[in-house]
Amino acid sequence: MRATGIVVEYNPFHNGHLYHVAQAKKIAQADVCVAVMSGSFLQRGEPAVVDKWTRTKMALHAGVDIVIELPYAYSTAQARQFASGSISLLHAIGCESVVFGSENGDIAPFSHTHHLISSHRTEYEAKIHEAMQLGLSYPKALQHAYQHVLTYATEATVDLAQPNNILGYHYVEAAHELTIRPLTIPRIAAHYHDENMAHDTIASATAIRKALFDTKNLRDIEAFVPAPTYEALTDWQTHSDFIQWQTFWPLLQHTILQKTPQQLTQYVDVSEGIEFAFIKAAKTSTSFAEFMQKVKSKRYTWTRLQRMITHIFTGYTKELNATFTAPRYIRLLGITKNGQAFISQQKKSIPLPLISRVASSDDAMLQFDLQAANLYDVGANMTRSAPRLNVDYRTPPLRL
Amino acid sequence: MRATGIVVEYNPFHNGHLYHVAQAKKIAQADVCVAVMSGSFLQRGEPAVVDKWTRTKMALHAGVDIVIELPYAYSTAQARQFASGSISLLHAIGCESVVFGSENGDIAPFSHTHHLISSHRTEYEAKIHEAMQLGLSYPKALQHAYQHVLTYATEATVDLAQPNNILGYHYVEAAHELTIRPLTIPRIAAHYHDENMAHDTIASATAIRKALFDTKNLRDIEAFVPAPTYEALTDWQTHSDFIQWQTFWPLLQHTILQKTPQQLTQYVDVSEGIEFAFIKAAKTSTSFAEFMQKVKSKRYTWTRLQRMITHIFTGYTKELNATFTAPRYIRLLGITKNGQAFISQQKKSIPLPLISRVASSDDAMLQFDLQAANLYDVGANMTRSAPRLNVDYRTPPLRL
Repeated sequence: MRATGIVVEYNPFHNGHLYHVAQAKKIAQADVCVAVMSGSFLQRGEPAVVDKWTRTKMALHAGVDIVIELPYAYSTAQARQFASGSISLLHAIGCESVVFGSENGDIAPFSHTHHLISSHRTEYEAKIHEAMQLGLSYPKALQHAYQHVLTYATEATVDLAQPNNILGYHYVEAAHELTIRPLTIPRIAAHYHDENMAHDTIASATAIRKALFDTKNLRDIEAFVPAPTYEALTDWQTHSDFIQWQTFWPLLQHTILQKTPQQLTQYVDVSEGIEFAFIKAAKTSTSFAEFMQKVKSKRYTWTRLQRMITHIFTGYTKELNATFTAPRYIRLLGITKNGQAFISQQKKSIPLPLISRVASSDDAMLQFDLQAANLYDVGANMTRSAPRLNVDYRTPPLRL
Repeated sequence: MRATGIVVEYNPFHNGHLYHVAQAKKIAQADVCVAVMSGSFLQRGEPAVVDKWTRTKMALHAGVDIVIELPYAYSTAQARQFASGSISLLHAIGCESVVFGSENGDIAPFSHTHHLISSHRTEYEAKIHEAMQLGLSYPKALQHAYQHVLTYATEATVDLAQPNNILGYHYVEAAHELTIRPLTIPRIAAHYHDENMAHDTIASATAIRKALFDTKNLRDIEAFVPAPTYEALTDWQTHSDFIQWQTFWPLLQHTILQKTPQQLTQYVDVSEGIEFAFIKAAKTSTSFAEFMQKVKSKRYTWTRLQRMITHIFTGYTKELNATFTAPRYIRLLGITKNGQAFISQQKKSIPLPLISRVASSDDAMLQFDLQAANLYDVGANMTRSAPRLNVDYRTPPLRL
């Protein structure tokens, strides 16, 4: 059996993702699709709209055969680390390729970009360093350095000003290092003439979340998600609110105001005086939006600030982060019969422990995933009449 | 003008307190009554049922002339430190005496007890140490040591098995050190024949809180509190719930689960493995009561556990606590015209800064009082449609 991998968040799953899964299997000529999925907190530094188990169920019903968890240490990291953690897990489980979405669906410009940057690595990194010293944000510094090495380009490259292209570039970079084949498919929004997927069934996850939070009426998004996703969201809504930072606001405000500026700098990414801004803003804000408005500055992107906030919320320290160098386990969140057949075939060649029962492991990276999930549930429980406790510890992989 | 001092929590103010204030002035032959009052968190390791400003208003309307705040560092400490902080502030502001309530209203047994213990101090402390090594709780160890020195007693002493007597004993101890005269009056419960205070107008603060939390109907307690207290409670209820640990439960659960066992031991009193019990219980409890039931053991009194929890909630570290040796300021919460006249007379002889505007001070002990108050309000805000922010920083002393 041949497997291909995809890197996902499914926040929430929608018809565009359905297309992505089908296309990935098709262009990779794969029998099995493995998704490595962020758990409780996502790459933009946000809690997921519904928990990892609900999103796993959506994925299994939509053609994904195996869902494994991208550990917190990677799911909340910047693009390079996020990509390298994801690709290394897909490689470890035995995927021959990884398929990601891009604007035009052509892998060549990504490969050329990768080649261009690797062959000018020293200059490129010196330029990033130089730009950041001048106070530019990390993405701006990357662009600056990239503009510089672009002068050496001889073939078409990708525009690294687009966040999705930055992720794609890092997938390709990590794939090259691990000898897993990078493939890309065009994003569905470009395919409005696609016969099986009429344009009015596609909406972005951002638009869908907006509807979930604003009108809270699931009928508004029914057309844009597969039926099992719709059911899973309906079920979630009967016992919990959909989750966003505002849901967790009192917890966040408390955790910031309970600490000295110096204590705040123990958390990953928090430094350079932003800790004072966090405390000052937490003292005077009545909502997450107001808080963010007060801490936002040119120096930091919204995403970078949200990641710092995620680490403060979950208690993810620099000390702990420094002990992690690579994923040390593959945590199974869900699997189909087809996926199970693939695992049976691969079992002996998977170099990392495949974890179904978390009680069987005391890996510190996995323990932190459980901690993040518990804190996510403490927040979600504020909206629930029947609180859920220790869910992540008790839940076995979903099987379909 | 002559001033007497009282040590209070007013959680909430009731008719017994009204009697206490009047009697204190009478037996001390004082023109002015100064109350040193715990702020947001109290000696039993609990948040106050309403905030310090509401309780200050109750006091000023009931005969107290000056309300000063007992800093967090003392208000949440065990009896000896609580008493020494309180008495030293009353002494600093110029009180000639301190009046406390006791069962029989006789100061002699307290003085004899103090004399007995001070003249056998070494033996007494050795016995406490011995008993704690054997695993007894601190109050039990005190009793054990006291039983031992009691064999030397030649006059009537007090029963130190009663928590109120322990506090009284420490007031007397601190008063002796500071040459302020200790006085005691009988508790009102013993005075049911008192003409002006019929028995059916007296209920304990515990009973009143129970009514506030259970029926939430203020009519049930109207008979037991002065009219201004009733109004203040009514006003509080229009915008907030009455506060108890359960109100703060999600914040407490989050702050415990966000930390490693080792990180929990940075907070005052947390050690000896209780940190593991806290985390385990927080993972599996849906309420504060359930949590406490799970962490309760013979080794720790309820009060001691609640104090640890208070320090975890507010972020009060051993490191910060070690920097505090004595109160360094007198924070004014409220004052009457009569109180103001006393202050004008005393001003030059008060050895500590008298603080009305907290913005004028950066004393770390005061900053922590503000932090505790802000965290109290983050919790209270969860029950409010209009959140209150930075109240303690912005509020000037109440004047009547």
